[in-house]
Amino acid sequence: MTKPAWHCPESIAAAEILFRDGLPPLSELAQSSLLIFDQHLLALDRPALTDWISSHPAAYPVVAGESLKELARFPAHAEALCRLAATCPTGSLRIVAMGGGSVGDFAGFFASVLHRGVDLWQIPSTWLAALDSAHGGKNALNVDGVKNQMGTFYGAQRIYLIRDLLLTQPPVRAQESLAELAKICLLDGGDWVDALGAAGPLTPPLLWDALPLAIEAKLRFVRRDPLERTGDRHLLNLGHTLGHVLEAVHLVPHGVAVAQGLRFALDWSLDTEILSGREHARLLEWLERCFALLDRRDLFPPIAEDRFRQILRADKKRVADDAIRFVFLAGRGQPQVQLMTTDAIVAEAKRQGYVA
Amino acid sequence: MTKPAWHCPESIAAAEILFRDGLPPLSELAQSSLLIFDQHLLALDRPALTDWISSHPAAYPVVAGESLKELARFPAHAEALCRLAATCPTGSLRIVAMGGGSVGDFAGFFASVLHRGVDLWQIPSTWLAALDSAHGGKNALNVDGVKNQMGTFYGAQRIYLIRDLLLTQPPVRAQESLAELAKICLLDGGDWVDALGAAGPLTPPLLWDALPLAIEAKLRFVRRDPLERTGDRHLLNLGHTLGHVLEAVHLVPHGVAVAQGLRFALDWSLDTEILSGREHARLLEWLERCFALLDRRDLFPPIAEDRFRQILRADKKRVADDAIRFVFLAGRGQPQVQLMTTDAIVAEAKRQGYVA
Repeated sequence: MTKPAWHCPESIAAAEILFRDGLPPLSELAQSSLLIFDQHLLALDRPALTDWISSHPAAYPVVAGESLKELARFPAHAEALCRLAATCPTGSLRIVAMGGGSVGDFAGFFASVLHRGVDLWQIPSTWLAALDSAHGGKNALNVDGVKNQMGTFYGAQRIYLIRDLLLTQPPVRAQESLAELAKICLLDGGDWVDALGAAGPLTPPLLWDALPLAIEAKLRFVRRDPLERTGDRHLLNLGHTLGHVLEAVHLVPHGVAVAQGLRFALDWSLDTEILSGREHARLLEWLERCFALLDRRDLFPPIAEDRFRQILRADKKRVADDAIRFVFLAGRGQPQVQLMTTDAIVAEAKRQGYVA
Repeated sequence: MTKPAWHCPESIAAAEILFRDGLPPLSELAQSSLLIFDQHLLALDRPALTDWISSHPAAYPVVAGESLKELARFPAHAEALCRLAATCPTGSLRIVAMGGGSVGDFAGFFASVLHRGVDLWQIPSTWLAALDSAHGGKNALNVDGVKNQMGTFYGAQRIYLIRDLLLTQPPVRAQESLAELAKICLLDGGDWVDALGAAGPLTPPLLWDALPLAIEAKLRFVRRDPLERTGDRHLLNLGHTLGHVLEAVHLVPHGVAVAQGLRFALDWSLDTEILSGREHARLLEWLERCFALLDRRDLFPPIAEDRFRQILRADKKRVADDAIRFVFLAGRGQPQVQLMTTDAIVAEAKRQGYVA
């Protein structure tokens, strides 16, 4: 009956985070839960998972990916979901999102606007979502192919992290999440980061062990600036300015694009002498050894300058017609934001070979 | 650069309200304003108004009405608006909504989700919007014809009330706003309400004079419960349970439906002995004399019971499968909320002749 204020700063990073070996018993989900799930999960041939999903009275399968986030497709989904929601008691309706980043974005946005906001729980099924996108209360839809133009700040009430579910992922998915983990390590630089490296290359079981501290590190940035008002939260954009362009143009997975974006930021930090040559070399070696983040410039043939500028222009982090907040790094745990002109970013991208 | 927290309780009723004789000079609207306006305003043949609208660098005409609020049409509008927004500096983008309730709902929702929330100013052009819907930070879209299924709480930063603009409205529009004014008078019951009645039937100039106190009275209810968490704000739903059904079925203007809904609530309050016969008669006489709210049951032939139940079921105020919060009145300034079953509401609507 009581509507939550999940839009508000104090709720953005306040989710109850539950680490579990297996899926929660259905009794933990109230009868008025509406499950929005990645239908790919049914194809994993895991009978317990299939049974768990099938036993929900209200469950809505979606095809994960960027097309799920396209605003043009949202009304048809919303109409079907509203019909399903009408079968649940309204007062305590809860959306449960089970899937990766796109499912979390879609379901989070839907929960935030349905009846002006209903409860939201997340069960991330990918490492990227478990490490990063499920946390921090941001969701987004794409408009006409332009990424994340629309969305809300809306904190989940509860997030389940399920070991069994995450370990069913193909190893390549774990690999793709390492760029976001590396990013948060570069930004935070705390003792836990050293411990992480000491154990050798990050396998999925080691990734599971790293989850609690990595999530907590991200949430520290979020809590300082829940609604992106002061710029602190913007630091989490390290590696994403170039990353988003590469993702849009070359259609590579987010993690692959961000990995290269991190390298771009480190190389630019070196070039502007924000980062010393010695520290630059040390960081690159560490990224390769612990996170297997190799230089994959070979995947990214140079982009036409016009196209590059066009995508930069749509960057939400643009603060004026010709300025973007770019995150440099002076060392581990020492990010620095500087306002850069589009021209300066294009020039650097040319210098590094990403723009023709 | 700083993103506002207009989603939050403290911002919902915090708009700066400016009363003006004429439209603000364009210099008061920053260059990064995107004007969303009711295109009907251009048809009023008021050169100064047409010039004012035309001189905006970014202006987007919409056809006001329920179809503007339909979610299925939202993506096409949003795509066009995003293209227009890309021509404004992003960091300080502001949506200015100029129109009646549907324009305010549409533009308010858009502003609340674009880039996860940009500034919003309102210039209500109808009496209903000026008195009621522009205030209190609620917006909504309809899903598949079901009213207000989706939306956000999102406070405007500034609201202009323009005498010239409101007085251009045909007198019938002023008339239709009197039901919402009567509602707030019935709920508030303060001294200003007696003064209002003393001046005789409410003409548009008297309505203009009443605006500040009527708005303030509404905002007192909003401030006690900005996000509709405690139920205080729900009192503003007086007259709307039946009103929404009549509006949906008989396609009458909102004000006409609410006027009849108020009478339904008063008659039911009498029938349940919450309201005395003497006070009931006094209130009806007062509604007729000051607000010209006559009994127009002749406009509403009885509705089939199934249809009536179906529309009640979609009521957002439904708190469980079979309960709706209904606002009764024990006297002026004495609203009472009671949980009523659908069956009880249907039975009373039958008794009063609204259901066959």
